[in-house]
Amino acid sequence: MDINRYCVIMAGGQGTRLWPMSRKACPKQFQDVLGCGRTLLQQTYDRYSRIVPRENIIISTHVDYTDIVREQLPDVPDKQVIHEPAFRGTAPSIANLACHIRTLNPNANIVVAQSDQLVLDEEKFVDTVSRGLDFVAENNKLVVIGIKPTCPETRYGYIQAEGAPVDGSFYKVRTFTEKPALEFARIFVDSGEFYWNSGIYIWNVQAIIDTMSKCLPDMMNTLESIYNEIPDRDQRRKRGYEIYTSFPNASFDLSVMERADNVYVVVGEFGWADIGTWDTLYSTLPKDGKGNVFVGGGVLLYDSNNNMVVTPKNKQLVMQGVDDLMIVDTDDVLMVCRKGNEDDIRRFLNDAKMKLGEKMA
Amino acid sequence: MDINRYCVIMAGGQGTRLWPMSRKACPKQFQDVLGCGRTLLQQTYDRYSRIVPRENIIISTHVDYTDIVREQLPDVPDKQVIHEPAFRGTAPSIANLACHIRTLNPNANIVVAQSDQLVLDEEKFVDTVSRGLDFVAENNKLVVIGIKPTCPETRYGYIQAEGAPVDGSFYKVRTFTEKPALEFARIFVDSGEFYWNSGIYIWNVQAIIDTMSKCLPDMMNTLESIYNEIPDRDQRRKRGYEIYTSFPNASFDLSVMERADNVYVVVGEFGWADIGTWDTLYSTLPKDGKGNVFVGGGVLLYDSNNNMVVTPKNKQLVMQGVDDLMIVDTDDVLMVCRKGNEDDIRRFLNDAKMKLGEKMA
Repeated sequence: MDINRYCVIMAGGQGTRLWPMSRKACPKQFQDVLGCGRTLLQQTYDRYSRIVPRENIIISTHVDYTDIVREQLPDVPDKQVIHEPAFRGTAPSIANLACHIRTLNPNANIVVAQSDQLVLDEEKFVDTVSRGLDFVAENNKLVVIGIKPTCPETRYGYIQAEGAPVDGSFYKVRTFTEKPALEFARIFVDSGEFYWNSGIYIWNVQAIIDTMSKCLPDMMNTLESIYNEIPDRDQRRKRGYEIYTSFPNASFDLSVMERADNVYVVVGEFGWADIGTWDTLYSTLPKDGKGNVFVGGGVLLYDSNNNMVVTPKNKQLVMQGVDDLMIVDTDDVLMVCRKGNEDDIRRFLNDAKMKLGEKMA
Repeated sequence: MDINRYCVIMAGGQGTRLWPMSRKACPKQFQDVLGCGRTLLQQTYDRYSRIVPRENIIISTHVDYTDIVREQLPDVPDKQVIHEPAFRGTAPSIANLACHIRTLNPNANIVVAQSDQLVLDEEKFVDTVSRGLDFVAENNKLVVIGIKPTCPETRYGYIQAEGAPVDGSFYKVRTFTEKPALEFARIFVDSGEFYWNSGIYIWNVQAIIDTMSKCLPDMMNTLESIYNEIPDRDQRRKRGYEIYTSFPNASFDLSVMERADNVYVVVGEFGWADIGTWDTLYSTLPKDGKGNVFVGGGVLLYDSNNNMVVTPKNKQLVMQGVDDLMIVDTDDVLMVCRKGNEDDIRRFLNDAKMKLGEKMA
């Protein structure tokens, strides 16, 4: 496998929209959300291990989750786990990781992976990411994987491509659009020019550092000076994270991708979903003949349709005469609500915290 | 307290209609079904301790539940716990207990209590039972407590009274009617002559033995001969239970109460319910302003009406946008069904046993 290939798995999110399964103490990426025996992080690691040498796979997570990562990925040495000292959005995180990887290998080609995504066709996935890594090895461009949309989904960002492809697959990006209203999503899909933003990015290390230096010069100057002034790798990395909290809470998409002029999209068609919300999970997972999705334990079902139920593996669900419910059963919370009211989850979470304290988060 | 007063608490039932909370390994009488901190058995014991000397309270249960009874009523010595070796209905059980109590005290006046009932006004309850015990001390009659009906309930048996009361409170029983159809229940209630059968019986020990000897002569002859021939009390009791399995599976109500001519009813008005089914429990327990009943842990409620939910004490329920559901959350079963379909519970239980084995019972 190409030793210049690197992968960073972003695993520091809190996944509040999958509450009460996803909890601050153990967010969704560390859970077997799909009920398949492997957590989302483990599945992500398995997937990228087919593309990138294992010793070049880096897990970026919050310092609170160090032990969970060690437990779930026991083969990954500590030096490949990077701890964010605070939640500061994606831009500071990606900048720091880029500076760090450059010290390991200035010829690194990096794929930035998300730890909470579903991929159905791994062969096609491996092919797409590999082509991306090969492309950025030769081109100082930022590549994002765009997913060919299957419906006018309003929960995803959209990427508009333009012109003829470079190297047969890489289209220049014209616009990024955050989650659109349904009428726009329909127009986007019908046009054939738009793709879902997967949040999977591919670039060589110098290209991302150069681009970020243009888009976020203050932050990059601070980081570069640390990396130049402190010769010891561990000390340097430590210092970089010490000043982390001084960085603005910046979204990488908004502050870099939407402003850079060297962004390209490669189209993925590998059965993809971002497991961000219960609704996504419901629409993603296979249904029984009556539109029900069950994750977890056994089920005895009578006259029930279009429900989504998540139970512990060792629990038996008995369900009769109910439709369109969203039920999540965890150790300390039982949530029973109408399916499709995903915006209410935050309200439930906030009310639970107000009433019972931070342990509910 | 009158040393001739005895109480037998019947605690051998399996409570299948409160599945999945009530389980063969720990039926409803051993659970805190009302969420008040005491199990139904403990509450029953507390209640009768106000009427009968504690050393005269006998718990009749299945041999499998000996340890649970010992744990829940640690002050009750082993000799006051009688173990049925098999489920054989109420008639053999009551006959055996009567013969046993006669050996302890031939002047015993006995109240036969059920361990799965709710009593709201304990003062009135104590008064009614005490009057019954005083009455049977002077009269060789079988007394049943009849509950003044508050609605045409079809889940209870009805007792018809006739004529003027003896001693001001004790009416001769004219008929027993098992669970009637709704139209009959309405007529019963409107007539003013009918009472719900509480299953609480009061008699002196000789009266019940004499009456049962007339109604079930074979069984009583077998029992009497054992009690006459074996002088040692423990040996005798042991032998009585050894032949227990040879007795027919007979209901006491059908084979004795409905056939005897010395049965009287005393009217109770103390806020009573038999906690036999989820529907009873729902109609019995206090509702919030929206018709919901919650037993167990905390609740965050949004736009939900007329639900009955039982959760573990340490669990938080979050409920939104659902009506008329019956939800029971136990360690190994989560039941979510339409409220009011109580006949389906047996089907669920049977299907669960078929699919997953006897551990589900």
